Amino acid sequence: MTTPSPPAADSPPDAPLSYEQAGVRYDQIDPLKVAAQRAAAATAGHLARHGFAEVAASRGESAYVVDVGPFYLASIVECLGSKAMVADEMQRLDGRPRYGTIAQDTIAMAVNDLITVGATPLVVQAYWAAGGSDWFADAARAQALVAGWKAACDTCGVAWGGGETPALAGIVEGGRIDLAAACTGIVSPRERLSLGDKLGPGDAIVLLASSGIHANGLSLARKLVERLPDGYLTEVAPGLTYGDALLAPTVLYSPVTEALWAAGVPVHYAANITGHGWRKLLRHPGAFTYRVHTLPPVPPVLRFIQQQARQDDEEAYATLNMGAGFALFVPAAQAGRCAEVARGCGVAAWVAGRVEAGPKRLLIEPLGVSWGDDALQLR
Amino acid sequence: MTTPSPPAADSPPDAPLSYEQAGVRYDQIDPLKVAAQRAAAATAGHLARHGFAEVAASRGESAYVVDVGPFYLASIVECLGSKAMVADEMQRLDGRPRYGTIAQDTIAMAVNDLITVGATPLVVQAYWAAGGSDWFADAARAQALVAGWKAACDTCGVAWGGGETPALAGIVEGGRIDLAAACTGIVSPRERLSLGDKLGPGDAIVLLASSGIHANGLSLARKLVERLPDGYLTEVAPGLTYGDALLAPTVLYSPVTEALWAAGVPVHYAANITGHGWRKLLRHPGAFTYRVHTLPPVPPVLRFIQQQARQDDEEAYATLNMGAGFALFVPAAQAGRCAEVARGCGVAAWVAGRVEAGPKRLLIEPLGVSWGDDALQLR
Repeated sequence: MTTPSPPAADSPPDAPLSYEQAGVRYDQIDPLKVAAQRAAAATAGHLARHGFAEVAASRGESAYVVDVGPFYLASIVECLGSKAMVADEMQRLDGRPRYGTIAQDTIAMAVNDLITVGATPLVVQAYWAAGGSDWFADAARAQALVAGWKAACDTCGVAWGGGETPALAGIVEGGRIDLAAACTGIVSPRERLSLGDKLGPGDAIVLLASSGIHANGLSLARKLVERLPDGYLTEVAPGLTYGDALLAPTVLYSPVTEALWAAGVPVHYAANITGHGWRKLLRHPGAFTYRVHTLPPVPPVLRFIQQQARQDDEEAYATLNMGAGFALFVPAAQAGRCAEVARGCGVAAWVAGRVEAGPKRLLIEPLGVSWGDDALQLR
Repeated sequence: MTTPSPPAADSPPDAPLSYEQAGVRYDQIDPLKVAAQRAAAATAGHLARHGFAEVAASRGESAYVVDVGPFYLASIVECLGSKAMVADEMQRLDGRPRYGTIAQDTIAMAVNDLITVGATPLVVQAYWAAGGSDWFADAARAQALVAGWKAACDTCGVAWGGGETPALAGIVEGGRIDLAAACTGIVSPRERLSLGDKLGPGDAIVLLASSGIHANGLSLARKLVERLPDGYLTEVAPGLTYGDALLAPTVLYSPVTEALWAAGVPVHYAANITGHGWRKLLRHPGAFTYRVHTLPPVPPVLRFIQQQARQDDEEAYATLNMGAGFALFVPAAQAGRCAEVARGCGVAAWVAGRVEAGPKRLLIEPLGVSWGDDALQLR
């Protein structure tokens, strides 16, 4: 029981609250990440003995891509994070299981990353590691998880291949579950690959709506509950509690990327806006200036978090998705059509900005925010 | 903190100890598994919209297989289970990090399953979910995990594609880590597919040596420690502690299956001997009699567990691998060559039995053990 005590626990209730204060110490994780990335990169040569090769540009991107000849193979594993703890707390408060939407969140974490490289997701594997066999004894909760998982697979047109349901007493906390999804897909035809070599000045930035916080920023959101007199039952909009607003399921974007391909709209690059918020718009390794002129509306729950955490716009947009869950970079001439196709899939979309020649920078003009290359050290 | 109390905690120290008594309640997990398998099977049709189809015989097998035209795609996610808790305890006792071998165990769980369908593993993704950022602050332990993970990828000739290193305080226990691996591979050429339609009377059973307990049966093995006066430091052989014997890394069998293909030895079917011990030899859905005439030597740690848990041979072989980590079913004429190829890869191997026409049964002749179809309800 040596979980770190977040410093914020002792801070006054009106003090600003940052993501790091909510208990995530990137300085402790990052050295391992760097070592792992270096070791991982050194294994790429093994593919040659099978007659294949990695697509080097996918190293550090959201999914790993291998050239297997007739098409590219893409794969990924993604963790839900701590959102399930909100579901647990809400079920404790009113008895309703929330794992249907939690299942969608988990699949979204994997699928929305996989599609950034241009892949069509084909197979999802479930990883459900419970704190003990008894987790599965709550039949209503377990059935919600199963039904939600299947529904998300249906939405994405993927086959649910199987998975693991271990009972890990002593590793996973009693009463909790560690959820993750692995996803495998293919990039076919090969020209769908969108690893960034097509991105350039003149491309438009099309932002796709989020449904709320999605599954990133939950450490902060959970920490904030301590400041709310009514906790998760605090209303963020009439009739909508903070807890249920947080639990709005992450939008699945693969129907949009598939529809774009079918409609002949080429995607030059894509970014899944997760941790690090809008800094993800700087993900491409090239030197371009990204100028955003239009902001999507901010979901009430995100505005609420921003206000409660006393974040200015710069910190809020650097941490949360603020209404934009996914970014597509497409030829300017196709931008309107791109947004229309997304709306046809039921996902609100905005032609929100453009890519320009210039130093690596993101300008969010309506907010007066400007970030340079140093804002995002993900790779 | 609602982990179930294993009934064995109150049993006398000389009473037999079963796997269920060690805290794993399959009766609680199985209804969910059945519901999940049913829902998963209903998603297979989605592949048609991409022009592909699942290989139905892979449902319920160790890896999921999709026919993508020029070859088959296979994918899987596998959890390590509780073996890392033994590593933690041994490090607490003598300060030496054991996560190098734990990494190999985790990859083996995925790779050894994936190869049963005839796949060549291509990409491994790491899932390392820690109980808090501080897990990664033990640099020696973290570096051992990275180095061991890379070494196992090197042995298997797979590319380490990337992965997730979330800090999940509140979900994963403080000081612990939940380890899993996702693996994607291809079956190429297509005739390498070994989902069982080739298995038949006359085939030989070739058993490949295990290195010890591998990563299944650890709940039982950890439970036994409570009965040992010297705990994990009890010697199971001169100079070899129980703890270190348990931590012998799982053998990686993909070099053998790749070498068999290169040598022209066809594999009709394969079974990874994990949970359920030798009952896994009954995995194939067909009605055959499996007659085993030769037993591999039993690793000291498994004999020790059998003795300490007061298990008869029938229960021991039904629970643990007892020296056989993997089974290959090959044409009788190729059996000797198959074993030679395995030995050439540094893996001891025995032509241990044969497949016969007859009711579904496993006869372990040297032990006088006979199991019928009801012994294994995995599907």
